[in-house]
Amino acid sequence: MDKIYEIEGGINSVKGIYSAGVCCGLKEGKEDLALIYSEKISDAVGVFTTNAFQAAPVLVTQEHLKQKRAQAIIINSGNANACTGKIGFDNANQMAQLTASALNLPTESVLVASTGMIGKQLPMGKISSGIKKAADNLNRLSTDTTARAIMTTDTFPKEIAIEMELSSERKARLAGIAKGSGMIRPNMATKLCFLCTDLSIKPTILEKIFRKAVNQSFNNITVDGDMSTNDMALLLSNGLAGNACCRECDLEDLATFQDALTYVCAHLAKMIIQDGEGATKMIEISVQGALKQEEAKRAAYAIAESPLVKTSFFGERCLWGRILAAIGYCGIRVNPELVDVYYGPIQIVSKGTGTNQEAEAEKILQQKHINLLVNLHLGSEQAKILTCDLSKEYVTINMGYS
Amino acid sequence: MDKIYEIEGGINSVKGIYSAGVCCGLKEGKEDLALIYSEKISDAVGVFTTNAFQAAPVLVTQEHLKQKRAQAIIINSGNANACTGKIGFDNANQMAQLTASALNLPTESVLVASTGMIGKQLPMGKISSGIKKAADNLNRLSTDTTARAIMTTDTFPKEIAIEMELSSERKARLAGIAKGSGMIRPNMATKLCFLCTDLSIKPTILEKIFRKAVNQSFNNITVDGDMSTNDMALLLSNGLAGNACCRECDLEDLATFQDALTYVCAHLAKMIIQDGEGATKMIEISVQGALKQEEAKRAAYAIAESPLVKTSFFGERCLWGRILAAIGYCGIRVNPELVDVYYGPIQIVSKGTGTNQEAEAEKILQQKHINLLVNLHLGSEQAKILTCDLSKEYVTINMGYS
Repeated sequence: MDKIYEIEGGINSVKGIYSAGVCCGLKEGKEDLALIYSEKISDAVGVFTTNAFQAAPVLVTQEHLKQKRAQAIIINSGNANACTGKIGFDNANQMAQLTASALNLPTESVLVASTGMIGKQLPMGKISSGIKKAADNLNRLSTDTTARAIMTTDTFPKEIAIEMELSSERKARLAGIAKGSGMIRPNMATKLCFLCTDLSIKPTILEKIFRKAVNQSFNNITVDGDMSTNDMALLLSNGLAGNACCRECDLEDLATFQDALTYVCAHLAKMIIQDGEGATKMIEISVQGALKQEEAKRAAYAIAESPLVKTSFFGERCLWGRILAAIGYCGIRVNPELVDVYYGPIQIVSKGTGTNQEAEAEKILQQKHINLLVNLHLGSEQAKILTCDLSKEYVTINMGYS
Repeated sequence: MDKIYEIEGGINSVKGIYSAGVCCGLKEGKEDLALIYSEKISDAVGVFTTNAFQAAPVLVTQEHLKQKRAQAIIINSGNANACTGKIGFDNANQMAQLTASALNLPTESVLVASTGMIGKQLPMGKISSGIKKAADNLNRLSTDTTARAIMTTDTFPKEIAIEMELSSERKARLAGIAKGSGMIRPNMATKLCFLCTDLSIKPTILEKIFRKAVNQSFNNITVDGDMSTNDMALLLSNGLAGNACCRECDLEDLATFQDALTYVCAHLAKMIIQDGEGATKMIEISVQGALKQEEAKRAAYAIAESPLVKTSFFGERCLWGRILAAIGYCGIRVNPELVDVYYGPIQIVSKGTGTNQEAEAEKILQQKHINLLVNLHLGSEQAKILTCDLSKEYVTINMGYS
């Protein structure tokens, strides 16, 4: 990690990347259409929701990605274009066509993403004029409006840019934007995340490295256990950094890039959890000592998605029985008489029973970032996931969301 | 069902059953200790939580039930005696011993149940004097205090009594009490439920009929997806109705009893959902047209436990995309282009896309009892479960529960 530095700016800090965020009228008075463009055709890879109801833009983008090349990404918020049938599919295709025409590209070079309410048809008049406006506004300046244009219930834009030192004494950059913040329980993908790099790297390796980074970041978070129909993470690599080495598989540079990509994805995943709907706290749940990694992960998710555990974190109350109950019903192998639980440094459960340290644990629970550690003491496998609490504000946001 | 009538009264309306509910000081100024006693030793069966962290009373009761006979049940609320180690186990045993001694019974004839906060040791002084008081107060009058004594966050006591006509022109009675109302996602058991009947029936058949009734009632409900460490449903059958037929396996009477038991369990399960923590609505979710019954059930639970679906019911908003998303991520086989969804009589989704009937559906959503029907149109299997909405009050109750 000593070869990776966070830098100012967003995706436009990557060589050859232009972007724009404009208002097209889907979200009154707010940016709702984002365009990302690479001056050079790029290698492109993506991961997508495993929800059976994949939204139209997910289907179109998967189709276009078959050639593993892309030059632009068009994204709207305020409407998910999901469960919209044949018309919705045609509209997603038309979004790609309109963008391709404005940028003078083949349609297949444009990837499409949408986020917002499910089940409404896109107002294509607004989208069409918005796409022209976005193409006219493409720039290499601030990317704040681009990051804002993909937000739904997010309260702040999420972006990060880093620079990495390559062995050839060259440098390359990697940057991304993402959005949350409800219906977050990614599986092989995330809500929406768009990454660009100017590193030159073999496409087959790119895909492998990308999947690994996503598995270690976006696939380890949950806000509410609800997996979206629109989850998508895309990565464009335009090769403009000028390095030759990664195409020749310089192992050291590949390791650097893997570190960089995992770092960037984890950073964005963390921002999504910090901005989870109604969240007041971020909770890092580690389950250790499991017989299988999958069992550790299942226990961590059961804890993270238990409404009783989540509300106790919101209330800053040390009700550790709810944590044991969740481990107990998630279907993994567990010996109740071996389990230890810690809130930060405070051991609250020893061998399955309480240590009477509630008062000390509740001091830890007042913090904004809490580490919860469970040790099953059965094996050596572990898993770590990020989640947030469940507040009254979550209910308020979602009882009326439209 | 024409041989079954609801009658006034609670468990004491069953021949030979006495009960009492007293205050022993676990819940300030409220009844917190219940005792149920049969004047005749009874056949007894039970079903229990499958949570790996089974509470001490669950372990003790399972041990005592090995003889398939019991004469009394002692239950405290306000303390779950779960995750309490060796001391907790000894305390649960002592509850049985103290009750046995007060009633002049062998210890193995007493079953024990607890509900309330996890992880605290029982104050045995209070329990001990409470048991004496309860034994002194055993009566055949109102059972309201008995039903109240097993409540935790419940807002009303839950009891029902029925009479059934047998083929021999005799009658028998069946009655029960239950409690909710958070950590409700039973699996082969329910939170707490105690049933008594004076019907005479073979113990092996009793167990089979009981499991079937539980599977069709308590195992089809969820408040928050959190399965408790203390779930338990017990049934005592003292044979005082004087019928001989069921021991000889009169098939008609067995069918009547199966209907009666399923009716009583379903009634109590429904009351638990109506009184779910913070619940403002009861929602009956039917999933039809599945390839397997298990898949129908998985989809129904995914819908019922989605925080986004639950909050939309609380907000009385027709956000049907959340229902499709839940079906889409629960891992069952589904063809998005075939799915229909109805809110009451209003079809809101046809072949996977919206019908623009939101305004009509939202009138249905204003009701207190809502039927949601999903048809997958893949096969002929179905499942039905009961749940409630997720309100701000649920968060308020659980952020500070102690």
